[in-house]
Amino acid sequence: MSVELGASIHAERLNRRIEELAQIGRIGETGVCRLALSKEDRAGVERVKSWMEEAGMRARIDPFGNLIGVFKGKNPELPVLMLGSHVDSQPYGGRYDGAIGVLGAIEVVQTMAEKGFIPEMDIEVVAFCDEEGCRFNKGLFGVRGMTGKLEEGELDRKDKNGVTRREALLEFGCDPAEFEGYTFEPARIGAFLELHIEQGPVLESLDSPIGIVSGISGPLWWTVELNGFAGHAGSVPMPMRRDALVGAAKVIVALNDLARLEEGASTVGTVGSLTVFPDSRNIIPEKVTFTVDLRDIVLSRRNEREQQLLETIQDICDEHDLQYLIREDTNSEPRYCAEWMKEILRKEGAGMGMQLPELMSGPFHDSLTMSYVCDYSMIFVRCKEGISHNPKEYSSPEDIALGAELLYRAASRIASGTDMGRRSDE
Amino acid sequence: MSVELGASIHAERLNRRIEELAQIGRIGETGVCRLALSKEDRAGVERVKSWMEEAGMRARIDPFGNLIGVFKGKNPELPVLMLGSHVDSQPYGGRYDGAIGVLGAIEVVQTMAEKGFIPEMDIEVVAFCDEEGCRFNKGLFGVRGMTGKLEEGELDRKDKNGVTRREALLEFGCDPAEFEGYTFEPARIGAFLELHIEQGPVLESLDSPIGIVSGISGPLWWTVELNGFAGHAGSVPMPMRRDALVGAAKVIVALNDLARLEEGASTVGTVGSLTVFPDSRNIIPEKVTFTVDLRDIVLSRRNEREQQLLETIQDICDEHDLQYLIREDTNSEPRYCAEWMKEILRKEGAGMGMQLPELMSGPFHDSLTMSYVCDYSMIFVRCKEGISHNPKEYSSPEDIALGAELLYRAASRIASGTDMGRRSDE
Repeated sequence: MSVELGASIHAERLNRRIEELAQIGRIGETGVCRLALSKEDRAGVERVKSWMEEAGMRARIDPFGNLIGVFKGKNPELPVLMLGSHVDSQPYGGRYDGAIGVLGAIEVVQTMAEKGFIPEMDIEVVAFCDEEGCRFNKGLFGVRGMTGKLEEGELDRKDKNGVTRREALLEFGCDPAEFEGYTFEPARIGAFLELHIEQGPVLESLDSPIGIVSGISGPLWWTVELNGFAGHAGSVPMPMRRDALVGAAKVIVALNDLARLEEGASTVGTVGSLTVFPDSRNIIPEKVTFTVDLRDIVLSRRNEREQQLLETIQDICDEHDLQYLIREDTNSEPRYCAEWMKEILRKEGAGMGMQLPELMSGPFHDSLTMSYVCDYSMIFVRCKEGISHNPKEYSSPEDIALGAELLYRAASRIASGTDMGRRSDE
Repeated sequence: MSVELGASIHAERLNRRIEELAQIGRIGETGVCRLALSKEDRAGVERVKSWMEEAGMRARIDPFGNLIGVFKGKNPELPVLMLGSHVDSQPYGGRYDGAIGVLGAIEVVQTMAEKGFIPEMDIEVVAFCDEEGCRFNKGLFGVRGMTGKLEEGELDRKDKNGVTRREALLEFGCDPAEFEGYTFEPARIGAFLELHIEQGPVLESLDSPIGIVSGISGPLWWTVELNGFAGHAGSVPMPMRRDALVGAAKVIVALNDLARLEEGASTVGTVGSLTVFPDSRNIIPEKVTFTVDLRDIVLSRRNEREQQLLETIQDICDEHDLQYLIREDTNSEPRYCAEWMKEILRKEGAGMGMQLPELMSGPFHDSLTMSYVCDYSMIFVRCKEGISHNPKEYSSPEDIALGAELLYRAASRIASGTDMGRRSDE
């Protein structure tokens, strides 16, 4: 796709900041380790705060560890337009995941300020605390805190060194005692717009630098246990076997086939984790435990595939005389992006000379939590070979600039009007 | 099968000894732990030695830890008829594996002595040292020592506590410095006959208390590694995936199908061990490593299945864009029981009113090593549900008595003649 762009944003400044932030907690040549609430995370947040201030925002860190920059609009009574993402990283992560959404949003505001544009409503840029969830094994902390969705016991979760999240927050300079006063009123936010790398290979395969997200497909997560009967691999004839791994293998093949049943559909099915008991080369597997991850932006289709998989597991277990046990670990519904926001993105994309593809997001983002309190939308930036959560993660400066430009144009459009507050489903 | 048996052996004495030996290293109600060269193993060997002496044998322990009882025949120049098995056990084992072969052989000799029967040649009853191989992770030690088949560095192998086999042997009362003088001349042994529990479910399914072994099917052991490409389980569309676990699952299903290709054949194929990398529920598996165990008493058929499996792996890897690596860990040829010995077993079985089924042995036994120095044959005793290497292992006193009776009759027949020395393949 060839793109003509009379750019508004300063691509060079944006990419310089991405580069500079990547030096904080840098590992190797291109990797980043800024675990949530670590010293590196704090240093990153401080740097980003200084850029917010440079861009013309008043910035503060709330008790959940969220960094919030406010760009004042004409009417403080109007619902806020929120932009942002996160700057914490995976332990062996890349420099783009999260960071481009926060730095892109700062670039948007700084460009507005430099052009003398004053939005109708306040614009808030947020770097949410602990999106990744690697340190305390539960993510989206900051955005859930801000929107009043924390669960019991979250402050007592411990990291590998036995440090609780409460201790880590205090060390970070945040006081959990103040949580209550900092939860948002539901109607306070009008819309949320997030720029993020795709973390998948679709845009690359479509030769498109950026794309519009149609929604976040919530996963169905199962843990499946198949129970057969162990025996010596040399002495039990094939027809007498109750081999749990043969059963599991057939389920894995069936899930793969089911996910591909409808060509071009957004269905994805994955068995990512599997363990065999007793796991000895000359003993027939007695028990196999594995995970199932099934996603689809079309919930009815996902439900249909779930039902088909269930029937297939039943058939396979009948055939091989196995018992099965299915535990449902997660059952998230898909969360769709607001049609009115997608329409703005489409039009602004067209204005930049691009017909933007629309694609589902498999991974979670801060947007997922935001979707429960306001309309939301996301812009994806192409990343190399779909690699993410890895130092090899890469998006080109040109692609990131295009994503930030679209973010600028869409935000400017939204912030020029006053009717954003309505929810699309109202 | 209903059996009329004018028994020669003393079934009650045999089963009492099995019971008594099971008290040494007993775990729980029915389990046994007599790890090779342990104090419990020594106590077991001492008890067995006393029974050998009670049966009329001169007994000694050789430097390899083998307990050998000699029942003198008329002509000490004739090749020896050897009977036996082992009395060491798995760490969480049963009371029958190995033990019935040693105690059954002692019962055979004691019955001969009581009847005043004097064999043509010497009969030697052996309790081989460390058949199981669990402690130093390499089995068939005693029989390999006796027949001059030890490998470099075996004495330096360590157990979990860092004790070397050399130290364990010395502690047991055996001196490795004396190994050389105790290796047998190849022609010294004429034939070897072993009684053992089946460790599989075939005899039970045929409703037959005992059976004749056709041979020990050596396994082909592979370690297979499939390499694909990791990616987020939510974001990589199905057609773009290189999922190593889907590939492995198809190989597992294919191996199962190949082993069942010829109905009633002795082919068995097993994937017993499998590991996934990175083994995370929301990441597409990048690397899967698994074992293949393929056995058949008919080597040409096993070779054919191996070739078919290889082609299938190639096809599956092509389809899913995976790389594969196959390491051959073991490639043992089947070792067939001597036809002349099987014929004796058939006839003696018929004399006991039974038409004995013949079946392959998947597991190894001391017989496997013996097969390289003399003719051999094995009698299998039915065991409950095929369970072995487990405290639940069970063979009934009646079935064991039948096995020992057949052992007695066959040994008496062989020991009444003088032409045993010829090898069947000569």
